[in-house]
Amino acid sequence: MTSSAVSIEKETVISERPHTFLRQTDGEDNGSIRSRFQSMILEMQESVCGALEALDGAGKFKEDAWTRPGGGGGISRVLQDGAVFEKAGVNISVVYGVMPPEAYRAAKASAADQKPGPVPFFAAGISSVLHPKNPFAPTLHFNYRYFETDAPKDTPGAPRQWWFGGGTDLTPAYIFEEDVKHFHSIQKRACDKFDPSFYPRFKKWCDDYFFIKHRSERQGLGGIFFDDLNDYDQEMLLSFATECVDSVVPAYIPILEKRKDTPFNESHKAWQQLRRGRYVEFNLVYDRGTTFGLKTGGRIESILMSLPLTARWEYDHKPEEGSEEWKLLDACMNPKEWI
Amino acid sequence: MTSSAVSIEKETVISERPHTFLRQTDGEDNGSIRSRFQSMILEMQESVCGALEALDGAGKFKEDAWTRPGGGGGISRVLQDGAVFEKAGVNISVVYGVMPPEAYRAAKASAADQKPGPVPFFAAGISSVLHPKNPFAPTLHFNYRYFETDAPKDTPGAPRQWWFGGGTDLTPAYIFEEDVKHFHSIQKRACDKFDPSFYPRFKKWCDDYFFIKHRSERQGLGGIFFDDLNDYDQEMLLSFATECVDSVVPAYIPILEKRKDTPFNESHKAWQQLRRGRYVEFNLVYDRGTTFGLKTGGRIESILMSLPLTARWEYDHKPEEGSEEWKLLDACMNPKEWI
Repeated sequence: MTSSAVSIEKETVISERPHTFLRQTDGEDNGSIRSRFQSMILEMQESVCGALEALDGAGKFKEDAWTRPGGGGGISRVLQDGAVFEKAGVNISVVYGVMPPEAYRAAKASAADQKPGPVPFFAAGISSVLHPKNPFAPTLHFNYRYFETDAPKDTPGAPRQWWFGGGTDLTPAYIFEEDVKHFHSIQKRACDKFDPSFYPRFKKWCDDYFFIKHRSERQGLGGIFFDDLNDYDQEMLLSFATECVDSVVPAYIPILEKRKDTPFNESHKAWQQLRRGRYVEFNLVYDRGTTFGLKTGGRIESILMSLPLTARWEYDHKPEEGSEEWKLLDACMNPKEWI
Repeated sequence: MTSSAVSIEKETVISERPHTFLRQTDGEDNGSIRSRFQSMILEMQESVCGALEALDGAGKFKEDAWTRPGGGGGISRVLQDGAVFEKAGVNISVVYGVMPPEAYRAAKASAADQKPGPVPFFAAGISSVLHPKNPFAPTLHFNYRYFETDAPKDTPGAPRQWWFGGGTDLTPAYIFEEDVKHFHSIQKRACDKFDPSFYPRFKKWCDDYFFIKHRSERQGLGGIFFDDLNDYDQEMLLSFATECVDSVVPAYIPILEKRKDTPFNESHKAWQQLRRGRYVEFNLVYDRGTTFGLKTGGRIESILMSLPLTARWEYDHKPEEGSEEWKLLDACMNPKEWI
């Protein structure tokens, strides 16, 4: 990666969270999708963190806010070493930047409309990874984002590109079928409100996306994932993204309530730690959000907040055939229909 | 990464180590650089593992050998959960393959002589990462390799490319100046036997290579590193690589003898674990050997043997200014001349 790839300005830590991170020219227009998407993620960060703190009972979220001179900024909230959570992070960010062509490729999967030169862009998103302590309580990840590119400089009249992306997925170390069914049902319910094709399509997309190619296994048991979505009405997709984030608490909290106090031993913990190692591998080698963040020079602590507190790698570890650990691995290698 | 990038055949585990991994046509020619480099790394794997087992006192290396149908193979040796070592791996491998252009770029840094099509190649190397348990005992990495490409198909008469690469580097969690000086002195001594320009040049190359760009810090306190070395006599470079591997034991074992039993507390251990997290970040995001291995479809357990047994990521961790932890971080951000 060359230094020319770093094209976001350095962030400045601020002591109070602002009402908006939008540039003034954007901020005036409260009806724009940019502005309404920002309001949605700010509200959702508040409500999700509230529900997680209530569940945890002991840990509190620590907030860090920052801005960038030319506009944009973000708010990271991290709860570390709580009663239930080892590490839980819920970030929102608003980014104005100029994408080098290689970052543009990382952010937008389709190779079809690649532009050769740098591309000015706007991106806003909420992103969260929740790692509980108990090895029977699954990790949850969700991430919803809205993207716009400016018109290319050489053809100022050309239309802007925009797209939505996101997903919610579950990564347990042990399978409780009722939990996985519950989780997928909530995802399907959110999808079905908008289009009956969404759940089957985004469920498969999720299985395909969270693929650790060098191991031929998926990171976890999936959920939904979509990207570059722009072939529907913008209003409809904004509502859909909102519904998806709104479904995080009902999809996840009931599972945690059931599993957070399950007794476990050292060998359960070691297996959880090995699966966390896989989480790290996917994140650093394949995840588009992480690689995009590292390439554009985003705030490192916020980008890498997704990494677990601790992880483990044993040489050539193979769970015994038929064991609970083996069943999880099998489901990661051969994705199932849960509902 | 597309599936077309995977161009090494799947390995077959074998029960006994063979005398050679070379293709018969290569194996006949015992005087070739391929053949002599292979003999050297086989011998060195034996002697380094012997010295490490003797130091550890309790742990034993477990050996896995494999071959590939079209020639090539490897031997992994891993010692896990010993008295001194948490995880110590010493691998040798011999690879015949066809490089897709993107892997060729990863293996050979210089963009100058990139070829558009697939490139048949031979690569042999020894590679090792040694992670001790005690947080005052540093991690050591070394890796020496010899590469040859076949003549390009469209110009069969063209000369083959060949080059040597490698390095030895030290990654402590705490600085003992006498240890770092000792380590660098041994590297300099090995270099000076061949060319007085080697140590300063390869010391800087090492500082530049092990750079975690997204954090603006180096992984550790360096050593020597070189790659694509072919502008010297081949015999001389084979002797130089041999001398470097031969210097691993005298450079490292005396440091471990001194530090393996140093008393430590939980906070020392937590800092070691955070630095192991950095090790993972460098390895998975930047290391050329790892990314080359993942792209060519090499044996995953051997490639990722370099990862530590355990690692840790805390959100926004900053050591107190002036503390021992801060001094290490400062030296990783601002490389020093140690001798």
